[in-house]
Amino acid sequence: MEKNKEFILDATEVPNRNPEYLETLFALGNGKFGIRAGNPLKVNHYYDGNPGLFVNGFFETEEIQYGEWAHGYAKKHQTICKLPNLRGVILRIGMENSAKEEWQIELIMRQLDMKEGILYENYAVKTPKGKSFELKITSFASIVRHELFVCKYELVKQNFEEPVYLSHTLFQKGKVTNDNDDPRVVSKKQDLLIEQKKDIYRITTKNSQKKLAIKQIINEDIFIGKKDCLVSIFQIGSIKNVSEDSLNSFECDVADYESLIEEQKLAYSKFWAASDIQIKGDDFLQKGIRFNLFHLNQGAGRDGRTNFPAKGLTGEGYEGHYFWDTEMYMLPFFIYTQPESAKKLLTYRWSVLEHAKARAKVLNQEGALFAWRTIDGHETSAYYPAGTAQVHINADIVYGFQLYEHVTGDQTFIKQKGCDVVFETAKFWLSFGDFLKKDGEQVFCINGVTGPDEYSALVNNNYYTNKMAQNNLRYAVELSKRFGLFEAERKKWKKAADLMYLGYNQDMEITKQDDGFMDQAFWDFANTPKENYPLLLHYHPMVIYKYQVCKQADTILAEMLFTDDFSKDQLMRDYAYYEQLTTHDSSLSRSIFSVMASRTGQKDKAYNYFMDTALMDLTDLQGNAADGVHAANMGGSWLSLIYGFAGLRYDRGLKLTNHLPEKIKELRFQIFFKRERIEVILTQETIKCILIPDSNYTLTITEKEVLIN
Amino acid sequence: MEKNKEFILDATEVPNRNPEYLETLFALGNGKFGIRAGNPLKVNHYYDGNPGLFVNGFFETEEIQYGEWAHGYAKKHQTICKLPNLRGVILRIGMENSAKEEWQIELIMRQLDMKEGILYENYAVKTPKGKSFELKITSFASIVRHELFVCKYELVKQNFEEPVYLSHTLFQKGKVTNDNDDPRVVSKKQDLLIEQKKDIYRITTKNSQKKLAIKQIINEDIFIGKKDCLVSIFQIGSIKNVSEDSLNSFECDVADYESLIEEQKLAYSKFWAASDIQIKGDDFLQKGIRFNLFHLNQGAGRDGRTNFPAKGLTGEGYEGHYFWDTEMYMLPFFIYTQPESAKKLLTYRWSVLEHAKARAKVLNQEGALFAWRTIDGHETSAYYPAGTAQVHINADIVYGFQLYEHVTGDQTFIKQKGCDVVFETAKFWLSFGDFLKKDGEQVFCINGVTGPDEYSALVNNNYYTNKMAQNNLRYAVELSKRFGLFEAERKKWKKAADLMYLGYNQDMEITKQDDGFMDQAFWDFANTPKENYPLLLHYHPMVIYKYQVCKQADTILAEMLFTDDFSKDQLMRDYAYYEQLTTHDSSLSRSIFSVMASRTGQKDKAYNYFMDTALMDLTDLQGNAADGVHAANMGGSWLSLIYGFAGLRYDRGLKLTNHLPEKIKELRFQIFFKRERIEVILTQETIKCILIPDSNYTLTITEKEVLIN
Repeated sequence: MEKNKEFILDATEVPNRNPEYLETLFALGNGKFGIRAGNPLKVNHYYDGNPGLFVNGFFETEEIQYGEWAHGYAKKHQTICKLPNLRGVILRIGMENSAKEEWQIELIMRQLDMKEGILYENYAVKTPKGKSFELKITSFASIVRHELFVCKYELVKQNFEEPVYLSHTLFQKGKVTNDNDDPRVVSKKQDLLIEQKKDIYRITTKNSQKKLAIKQIINEDIFIGKKDCLVSIFQIGSIKNVSEDSLNSFECDVADYESLIEEQKLAYSKFWAASDIQIKGDDFLQKGIRFNLFHLNQGAGRDGRTNFPAKGLTGEGYEGHYFWDTEMYMLPFFIYTQPESAKKLLTYRWSVLEHAKARAKVLNQEGALFAWRTIDGHETSAYYPAGTAQVHINADIVYGFQLYEHVTGDQTFIKQKGCDVVFETAKFWLSFGDFLKKDGEQVFCINGVTGPDEYSALVNNNYYTNKMAQNNLRYAVELSKRFGLFEAERKKWKKAADLMYLGYNQDMEITKQDDGFMDQAFWDFANTPKENYPLLLHYHPMVIYKYQVCKQADTILAEMLFTDDFSKDQLMRDYAYYEQLTTHDSSLSRSIFSVMASRTGQKDKAYNYFMDTALMDLTDLQGNAADGVHAANMGGSWLSLIYGFAGLRYDRGLKLTNHLPEKIKELRFQIFFKRERIEVILTQETIKCILIPDSNYTLTITEKEVLIN
Repeated sequence: MEKNKEFILDATEVPNRNPEYLETLFALGNGKFGIRAGNPLKVNHYYDGNPGLFVNGFFETEEIQYGEWAHGYAKKHQTICKLPNLRGVILRIGMENSAKEEWQIELIMRQLDMKEGILYENYAVKTPKGKSFELKITSFASIVRHELFVCKYELVKQNFEEPVYLSHTLFQKGKVTNDNDDPRVVSKKQDLLIEQKKDIYRITTKNSQKKLAIKQIINEDIFIGKKDCLVSIFQIGSIKNVSEDSLNSFECDVADYESLIEEQKLAYSKFWAASDIQIKGDDFLQKGIRFNLFHLNQGAGRDGRTNFPAKGLTGEGYEGHYFWDTEMYMLPFFIYTQPESAKKLLTYRWSVLEHAKARAKVLNQEGALFAWRTIDGHETSAYYPAGTAQVHINADIVYGFQLYEHVTGDQTFIKQKGCDVVFETAKFWLSFGDFLKKDGEQVFCINGVTGPDEYSALVNNNYYTNKMAQNNLRYAVELSKRFGLFEAERKKWKKAADLMYLGYNQDMEITKQDDGFMDQAFWDFANTPKENYPLLLHYHPMVIYKYQVCKQADTILAEMLFTDDFSKDQLMRDYAYYEQLTTHDSSLSRSIFSVMASRTGQKDKAYNYFMDTALMDLTDLQGNAADGVHAANMGGSWLSLIYGFAGLRYDRGLKLTNHLPEKIKELRFQIFFKRERIEVILTQETIKCILIPDSNYTLTITEKEVLIN
C-alpha cells in the first residue's frame, strides 16, 4: 500500500477518537448506498458507535405534527432508513460465542485507500477464555456494480488451532438515535418489516411502503481456518413487488472477489484521472482535498431517480434529504470533472418536476416550485420560513442546468430534460413576483422569501434570490427562443428579468441583502459567548431574525456566481461588510468566503477560509461530523480551489485567474470543457493550461488570466 | 316573563337551528364556569350537539409537537377541559329507560332571560311506548355564589300516572371534537381521571395534574310526581389536594332554591343598573346589545387568578386561552361599568408576571414578556410568527392598567399590582428595541415583530406596536417618578419613548403599518372568490404575508386609542387606505372600523360595521359561533357604541362627542368616572350628561362635545 500513501487516510491521523465520528469518515458508498465503518462485533449487546446502512432514496414517511396548522404546510416527514449493519458479524470458536459472551475487540488499524476505494481494517479480538487473533477486513462499495457491497474477513495471528465460524448479524437492528433536539439531525423511530427467504432479506417500510431486498452471496464457506478467508458479497436492490418470483429472480452477475477488486481499482483510477487535484506544500491538506473528492464521488445518486443527500450516504443528518446543496455546492465539481454524474443528478430534478408543479399549485402559483428539502420530490420542510420560503431553490436548480449546458455543451439534454424545468420555474417567478413601483421606477420584486442566509427570514427582495431569479428568467427567454416555445410568456419573462429589483444602499455603497436588512441593528457579537454558537441553538429565531447577522454567504454567494457583473471595489466593500456579520454557522459559508477572498485579492483570508473548508470533517470543525460528512462543504472546498485559487468561471468561454495563496506552491487539476480535457497548472508565478492537441479552443493568456473559448 | 321582554332571547329569534350553535348562544356562566345549553337527554347514545362544562383555568397540558424545533419555542399546549354535561339526565318511567331506549326529545321553548340571568326551557319528550310529557328546565349559573350551578326540572302535561325517576348523567363524558384543522379551534383528546365518593366527583387531569371536585346537592328526591319538581344544585370547586378530608370538607352554604333565584335576580338587576345600554329605534338590535353585555358578564374570571377566555366559557374555541382580547376589547367595558371586575382581570396579569419575566429571559431579553396566548401564564402559542412575535401584548396589558387608573383613579392598585407590570414591560422594550439611524436621525425601532394584523408577520416597526410601546414607556416614566423608583432606567425609557419611530409615507401621506408594508403588492381582491375567505384557511401564510392585505384593524386600532394625536384629515386618509385592504377575517376588526368611522364622521359606515359587530353571533356572521361566542367582538360592540357613537375617550378628563348614526334615535348608558356615576343620553340633536348632585367634576359642553374633568 505504500505506493498510495498520499491517498491513504489512516485513523491515527484524525484527532477525534469517537467511534461515531470514525464511522462517518471511513464510511463507504457508491451513490446507491453507503455503509458506516462500524466495529464489526457487538460488545455488551451494542455496537460502540452508530453503524448502519443507508440506501439512497429508501425512506420512511411520517405525518408532520404541527402545534398550529396552516394551509399549504408540508404534510409528511421523509427520513432515510437506517438499515442493519452489513459489516456486523458473530464469531464462534468451539463453545465460545461472541453473541453470548463479552469478547474484547480493539481497532488496531483502519486505513481508507482512496485511490482504490477500498477500506482496510485490522481488529484485535480476544475471547473470555483467552483465545486471541486479529480480524482483517477488506471492504468496498463497488462503483462499477452499484448493487454490490464486498467484505472480506481474514484471520491472522491466532493463538489457537480450532476453526472460527463467522455469521452475519445482518438483521439485528442497529441502534436508532431518537429525541435529538438539534434541528440539523432528525432521527425517527422506524418500523421496518424484515422477512427472510433463503439468503434474501426483504425489507418493507411501514408507512411509505418502500421495498428493498438484500441478498447475501458467499463464495466461501463460513468456516475460516488458518490462512483461509471469508468473502461476503451483499447485493442491495430495490424491488418493485414482493412476489416470491421477483425475490428469486433478484440476482446479478457477480464476478469473483479478485475481479471485483480489480474492477474497483480500475474504476477509481479513472475517477482520479479526471477529478484529482494536486497541490504542493502540505501533505495532510493534499490528503484532505482527496478525502473531500472521494466522498463527493461516494455520495452522488447516479440512477436519475436519486440525488445527493446533504450528508452523502454517511449518516442520518438531515434525514437523507436533498437540498440546494447539490446544485450550488456539489454540482460544479461533477459538471467540470464527472459530467455524466452531473447529468444524472439533474435528471433527478426533472423526474420530480410534477411534484414541483403540484407544490406551486398548493401555493396558488403558476409553474413549479421545487421542494426545499425532499427525497422523492414532495416538500418535507416542517418550518417554512427556513424551508418553502427559500424559493431560490428553483433558480439554483436552473443555474445547475445552465452551467451544465455551458460547460458540457450538451444541448440535447437541455432540450429533453432541462427546458421543462427552466420554463416551469420561470412561470413561477412571474406568478410569485410583482411589478411594483420603487423609488418612482417600475421594478420586479420578489417579496416575502428567505434567501440563503437563514438568519433573516421572510424578507422582501433578497438580493441572491432576485439575482438568481433574473438569471432563471433570462435562461428561459434564451431557451424559449432556441426551441420556439412560449412566445407569449417570453416577453413577460424578459420584462421581469430586465426590471428585476436588485437592492443597493447608495449611502453606504453596499449591495443590500434585502429591503430591510440595513434598517436592523447589528448583532452584539462582542457580548455573545463562544459557546452560544451556532446561534440557532441558543436564540429564538425571532430574536436572530431582527438583527444584521448572517448564518452564511448570501449576497457574497450571488457575487461569486456573477463576479464579472461587479466592480472590484464593490466586491471588496460588500465582502468587508458582510464578512463582519457572518457567523458561518452553516457549513455552506466558508468556502464561498474563500472564493471571494481569492477573487478580491485577499489571499490570506482565502487560504484561511479554505483551510477550514478543506479540513472541516477531518478536524471535526463543526463538531457534528458523527452525523455524517458535510458534503456541500466538500463541494465547497473544490470551489475554493478551482473557483477561488484558480479563479475559474464561465462567461462566454472559460476564464481562469491565478489567485494562488502563498502557502500553496503549485495547484494542478483538470476539467472538461465541451468534452475536451484541459489540464491546468498554477504556480505562484504562472498559470498554464494544456489543451488536447487537436482542441477546438484557443487560449488567451494575459499575465495572470486565461481565457478558453 | 312578559315584563322582561326586551331582555329575553328566544331560540326562535335566531336564524340558525344547529344544536351546537344554540348551545353556545344560550350557554350559562359566571366567570368561574360555563355550561353549554345542551339537550338534556341523550338520543341514540349521543347528545345531538356538543354540550359540556368549562371551568375557567381548568386545563390539560400536552407537549407541543414541532416538525422542526427551535430554541425558545413554547413547550406545552394548554387546553381547557371539556367536562361532563351537568344538565344531562337519564329518565325512567316504569320499565322504560331513556339510557337504554330511543326516546324522542324535542326543544319546544328556550328563552334566556338576560335580565335575571336565568334560562327557561321546555322539551317535549315521548317514550317508545307512547308516554309523553313536557320537561321544563329552569337553570342558572349563580353570579353571587360562583361555585353553584342550579337546575330545576319539572314535568307537565304528562299523559300517564306513573312517577318519573330522574338521574344525572354527570359523568358520562361528552363528545370530544378531534382532528379539527381550523387553527382557530383546537380540540385535543383529554384523559380525565374521574372518581366518585358519595355525591362528590373528583376530576384529575392526566398531565397538568389539575384537580377539581363537583358535588351534587339535591334538595328533593329524584322522584318527580305530578306537580313535583327536582332541583339539582352542583357545587364546582377546585381542590388543592385530594385527601378524603379535603373532599368531605368540600361544601358550601347553599340557600334554598327560591333564595338562590332571588339572589340571582337581584345581582343581575345591579349589573344592568350599571352596565345596560339602551337604544331607541331597533328592538332586535337592543336585544343583541344586551346579549353581548350579558355574555361579557358571564365570561370574566373574578378571582384574580383567571381571566377572560377568547370564547368566554361558552365553547372550546381557542382552547380557553386568554389573549390581548381582554385588555383591548373587553376591559374598557369593565373599567367603565364594572371596575371591580376590571381590577380582577388585571390582577390576573400581575399574578403571572413571574412567568412573563421567565419568558423574556428565554428570549435573551430583560424585563417581562407576557404570553401571547395562555391560561396559566406560560406561553402556549405553537406558531410564533402569530404568537410570541406579537410582543404588543405587553403594551396592551399596560394600556389596560393605565386606562383603569385614569378612569377609576385607583392609585393604590397601580402601586400594589400595576407598577411591577409597567416597569418590567418597559425594561423589555428597551432590551428588545434598538436605537438606530433612520433617514439620518436617531430613532428607537422595534424590529422583527408581528402587529395585530396577522396577515403581516415578522415586520420592522409595526406602527401599532411602536405607538403602544411608546405609551408603555411613558407610563413607566410617570410611575417611576411618582413612586421614586428606577431613576437610572427612567432616562432611557424616556429617550426610547421620545425617539420612538412612527412610520409615515410622505408621498402618500399615509401612516405606515410597518417599514415594508407599502413596498408590497396589493392583494388581488378582484380575483379572490368569496369562499376563499378567511384567507388563512385557503392560502399559505408566506403567500398572504407578501401582500398588502390586513386581517384586521392594526394602524386603525392605534388611531382609535390615540385619536387626538392625529388630524382629522390624516385619520380620514388612513381609514380609506386601510379599509380597502382589510378582510375583517378576524372578529376583532369591524368594531374598530366602526369606532373610527364614527370619529371621522362616516356615520353610515359606522352603523354598518357596528351592526355586523353587534349581531355577529346572533346572526352567526363568522359561521363559527358553534365553537363559542366571539367575546372580544362583544366587547367591540360596546366600543362601537360608547367609543364610537358617543365618542368617549380619556384625555386628561373624559371626552364625549356625539356621532350617533341616523338610524339610532337615542342612546343611553352610564359610566363610572373615579367612583362617580355619570349618565349619558345622546339623541340626534343633543348630548346630555347627568352627574351625581355632589359631583367633583364639571361638564364643559360645546355643541356636540362634552368634557368631564
